[in-house]
Amino acid sequence: MTLGRALTILPVEGIPEILPGTVLGDCLGEAAALEDGDVLVVTQKIVSKAEGRLVAVDPEDRDALRRIVESESRRVLRRRGDLLLTETQHGFVCANAGVDLSNVRTGEAALLPVDPDRSARRIRDRLAARFGVRVGVVISDTFGRTWRNGVTDVAIGVAGVAAVVDLRGTTDALGRTLRATVVCVADELAGAAELVMGKATEIPAAIVRGVDPAWLVEASVAEGVVRPYAEDLFR
Amino acid sequence: MTLGRALTILPVEGIPEILPGTVLGDCLGEAAALEDGDVLVVTQKIVSKAEGRLVAVDPEDRDALRRIVESESRRVLRRRGDLLLTETQHGFVCANAGVDLSNVRTGEAALLPVDPDRSARRIRDRLAARFGVRVGVVISDTFGRTWRNGVTDVAIGVAGVAAVVDLRGTTDALGRTLRATVVCVADELAGAAELVMGKATEIPAAIVRGVDPAWLVEASVAEGVVRPYAEDLFR
Repeated sequence: MTLGRALTILPVEGIPEILPGTVLGDCLGEAAALEDGDVLVVTQKIVSKAEGRLVAVDPEDRDALRRIVESESRRVLRRRGDLLLTETQHGFVCANAGVDLSNVRTGEAALLPVDPDRSARRIRDRLAARFGVRVGVVISDTFGRTWRNGVTDVAIGVAGVAAVVDLRGTTDALGRTLRATVVCVADELAGAAELVMGKATEIPAAIVRGVDPAWLVEASVAEGVVRPYAEDLFR
Repeated sequence: MTLGRALTILPVEGIPEILPGTVLGDCLGEAAALEDGDVLVVTQKIVSKAEGRLVAVDPEDRDALRRIVESESRRVLRRRGDLLLTETQHGFVCANAGVDLSNVRTGEAALLPVDPDRSARRIRDRLAARFGVRVGVVISDTFGRTWRNGVTDVAIGVAGVAAVVDLRGTTDALGRTLRATVVCVADELAGAAELVMGKATEIPAAIVRGVDPAWLVEASVAEGVVRPYAEDLFR
């Protein structure tokens, strides 16, 4: 890991309203002055819109909403009132299977992308092909956590940037071998980007500039971050 | 939330070896060119060292280590081999009650600070008194998560910066009221800072420059982030 590296996190402004069929790589490349080595963090909401992952629903029809959440889920882990904590088809554990009514038109709900790693690869590939930039892409979403209040943004898909960085076998500052330090840099990148986005603003993407070039590798949230059911101590 | 705000994250280099009794505010203020409105993220390890939260232990004596972990814990939630997932005296849920052998001398283990919010206030107050800067301070530590592989840095104490930002009652970009969006910005700040620190380097602090001035308020991780036992769905 390089010492003394500074990061800059830049909100991407001027992204137009995204509709089903919008080529996100084009919109993002036009709005963001990307440089080689940047990581572009894109919120799930505009990815879902571009991919047409929207369903019609009356926002007051709680039964209909619950059925959508259940159909997006592999398992329901907990219920509390209208809140369902479920495991999605991807293996994510989050509230209401990521089904979300905010920042979509009334009468619609946004579902998570079917394969967020693939969504990230598509954006990355388009940016390379059309704008000639080699960047990493993180698709982010806002999840709650066990044990801790408040939500944070985490990575649901990546392309061209590490999901986790494995420091096992490296030594600490005192020469001792680190035992079990696999850092989920993708989640930290997603959370860092959220700090310049806000939830209520029109900023659905941010650039993280200055990441360690060693992190710019092929990776997958599905393979690197999602903890298999059998390995989890709390499900 | 202000649109178009960019963040910069700067590693703080040149911090000397920290010993019990070291006045951290002095060391940090000398090493970091802080500006009013910065948030200084400081890793737990140097806070524990400065506060003398070190105990002698043979790193190969697994029974002794387990007893230390248990004495730092309020409840043991899960055991798997040598790994204990416990609830600390503060209410944090983490591996081995945060007891850690990395980056301390062989034969010692570092315990979490007794009151990390107070630790943060002490650093903040010293920086204000000695260097005349008004900054927020986050004490960070590295925790695992349920459901997701890899660790990330989170906030265990804050002073002069929000732990969570409550967006309930604000409206989204389409004018709809956001329902339940309390963002844990302190955790996102801690994770962002980790991106410039690494685990094996000698960088135990980082500056986050450019945060929303509205976030620079009095706050507490203990009150704002720690989820009470009775409210948790998975304990």
